[in-house]
Amino acid sequence: MSGFSLAVHGGAGGFSSGEAGEQGMREGIAACLDEGRDLLAKGASALDVVEALVRRLEAHALFNAGRGSVLTRTGTVEMDAAIMEGAEQRTGAVACVRGLAHPVSAARLVMERSRHVLLVGTQAERFAREHGAEARDPSELITEERRAQLERARARDEVRLDHDTDTGESQKPGDESGTVGAVARDAAGHLAAATSTGGMTNQLPGRVGDSALAGAGTWADDGTCAVSATGHGEAFIRAAVAHEVDAAMRLAGLPFEIACERALARAQALGGRGGLIAVDAAGRIALPFNSRGMLRGWLDAKGAPQVRIFADA
Amino acid sequence: MSGFSLAVHGGAGGFSSGEAGEQGMREGIAACLDEGRDLLAKGASALDVVEALVRRLEAHALFNAGRGSVLTRTGTVEMDAAIMEGAEQRTGAVACVRGLAHPVSAARLVMERSRHVLLVGTQAERFAREHGAEARDPSELITEERRAQLERARARDEVRLDHDTDTGESQKPGDESGTVGAVARDAAGHLAAATSTGGMTNQLPGRVGDSALAGAGTWADDGTCAVSATGHGEAFIRAAVAHEVDAAMRLAGLPFEIACERALARAQALGGRGGLIAVDAAGRIALPFNSRGMLRGWLDAKGAPQVRIFADA
Repeated sequence: MSGFSLAVHGGAGGFSSGEAGEQGMREGIAACLDEGRDLLAKGASALDVVEALVRRLEAHALFNAGRGSVLTRTGTVEMDAAIMEGAEQRTGAVACVRGLAHPVSAARLVMERSRHVLLVGTQAERFAREHGAEARDPSELITEERRAQLERARARDEVRLDHDTDTGESQKPGDESGTVGAVARDAAGHLAAATSTGGMTNQLPGRVGDSALAGAGTWADDGTCAVSATGHGEAFIRAAVAHEVDAAMRLAGLPFEIACERALARAQALGGRGGLIAVDAAGRIALPFNSRGMLRGWLDAKGAPQVRIFADA
Repeated sequence: MSGFSLAVHGGAGGFSSGEAGEQGMREGIAACLDEGRDLLAKGASALDVVEALVRRLEAHALFNAGRGSVLTRTGTVEMDAAIMEGAEQRTGAVACVRGLAHPVSAARLVMERSRHVLLVGTQAERFAREHGAEARDPSELITEERRAQLERARARDEVRLDHDTDTGESQKPGDESGTVGAVARDAAGHLAAATSTGGMTNQLPGRVGDSALAGAGTWADDGTCAVSATGHGEAFIRAAVAHEVDAAMRLAGLPFEIACERALARAQALGGRGGLIAVDAAGRIALPFNSRGMLRGWLDAKGAPQVRIFADA
C-alpha cells in the first residue's frame, strides 16, 4: 500500500461503443490519475487533490463539467459542483453558475470563506469572483458538440413529451454521461470528495441535480467513506445515495462494497441508473454502477492507474 | 387513536420570553392543528394536509416563510420550500424564489409537473407560475418588523465579522426562528412532510439552507418516518439530519425517538442547534429540539391540539 488511495469518474451512462471522444476521455482520466498520484505522494491533502483533479476535468472539453458542459433547454450552460472533506464534514457547493471557469473551486470558496454551504446563481458567481475565483465568459464554455447534442435532444423531447408521464424515467441515460468527480484518501488518513457537472442536456434552466447536494451526490466522513455519484440526479436525491453509503456503513455495519451497491440499488428502485466512486477509511476503492457503463479510473494496489468504462473494458 | 397524526412547527431558536408576537404565533399553530385535524378526519391525504398547513403559515405574517420572511443582506426576500411524500418518495423543492405567494405549492408543482426535484431562482418562479402558482409582488411579502430585524442584524454583523471565524457558529439562533413545517400520517397510512422558510436574517442572497434540500431539512418514507427540521441550516445539511432519522430507523433499527434525537445531536456536534418534528409509520409523534425553544404543535392521543415553545410551556 502506498498509504493513499484515489478514484475519479467521468460520468455514467449508455456509452455507445466507439463513441466519439471515448479514447480522449479515457486519456483524460488517466492523466488525472497520474497527477493525483504525484500530488498524494508529495503529501498533498485529499481535499487539495480532489479539487485539483476535478479542475482538470472541468477544463477538459470532452467532459460534462466546466468547459464542455451540456446545454439547458435555452442553450445556456449552468454548472453545479460540490466539495466535502471528511475530518470535520465541512462542505461547500454552487449551483446554476454560468460565468466561472472552475465551479469546484467556487464550491471550496463557499466552504472556506462563507458561513453557508450552498450558493446558487448569479449571487454564487459574484461571491466566488469576489473571493478570487476565475471568471470565464459563458460562451467560452460551450462546445460545438454540445450545441449539436442539444439539437438532437430537443427533437427527441418533442416526441417524448407526447407520451411520457413527466416523471423522468424516460430520460436517456446517455444524456447524463460526463459528470466528473474524484474521491481520495491521503497519507494522513483524511478523506475528501468532489463532484462537478453541467447537468442534463435540455434540462430546465434553474434545475439543480444531485451533484451540488451534500448527501445526494457528494459526501465525506473520515470515519466511513468519501463518495462522488453520477447518474440520474433526481433519483439520486430521492435516495440520498451518497449519505446512504455512509449511513449503511456507520449505522448497519455493512461492508463498504455492499453499502455502495445497496445505495445505488435504492436509486435504481426509484427509476434512476448511474454509479458512484468511493473510498473508505482503510483506503479501499469501490466503483459500482448499474448503467451500461461508467467512465472511471483508480490507482490499483501497486499504485498503477487503471481506466475502465464497461464492466471489463 | 384517530387513525391519523399531525405535527407542525414554527421554527426553533432563542425565543426570548414575552417576545412580541409569541401569542400570535401560538394561535397560528393552534389554528393549523384545527384545520389539519378537520382535513385528515375527512380523509385528506397527508400530502394535501402538509401543503395546506404550510400555505397557512406562509400567509401568516409572524412566521418566517412566505409573507413575513426575513430579509437577506440586500433587503430582499428569498424563500425556500420542499415537500416529500412517503409512498413513492417523490419530492419537489424550490429555492431563492421571490415573487410567489406560496413556495410550498411551487415545490409541489416541481414534484408533480416537472422531471426535476429542485428548481431555483427566477426560473423556478417562472416554472411555478406557468403551472398555476400564485404570483405575489415581492414587496408585499416584506413586513416592517422584518425590516427592523435586518437593521439590527446588520449592526451586529459589523461587529461579528471582526471577530468570528466565518464558520457560522456565531450565528444567533434567534435569527432562524420562524421557519415552518408540517408532518402528517393520514388514515391510509401514508406519510408526508413539508418545510418552508425565508432563510436567515442578513444571509447572502443566493444562499440555500436545509429547508429546500431533501435529506437535510425534509424527508418522508412510509416505511419509517416523515421529518421537517428547523435550525441552523448549514449544520443540518452537513449532518443530513432528516435522512439520518430515516436511516437510523431503517438501517440500525433504532427506536423512532432515539433516531430523532441522535440525528439532532449530530448537527449539534457540528455547531448547529435546532429541532425537528417527525411522525413514524405507526403514527407516533416526536418533537425534539436542542435550541432554547421550538414552536411546535401536535394532536395528542385524544386528537386534542397541543402547542408549546419551551420544554414545558
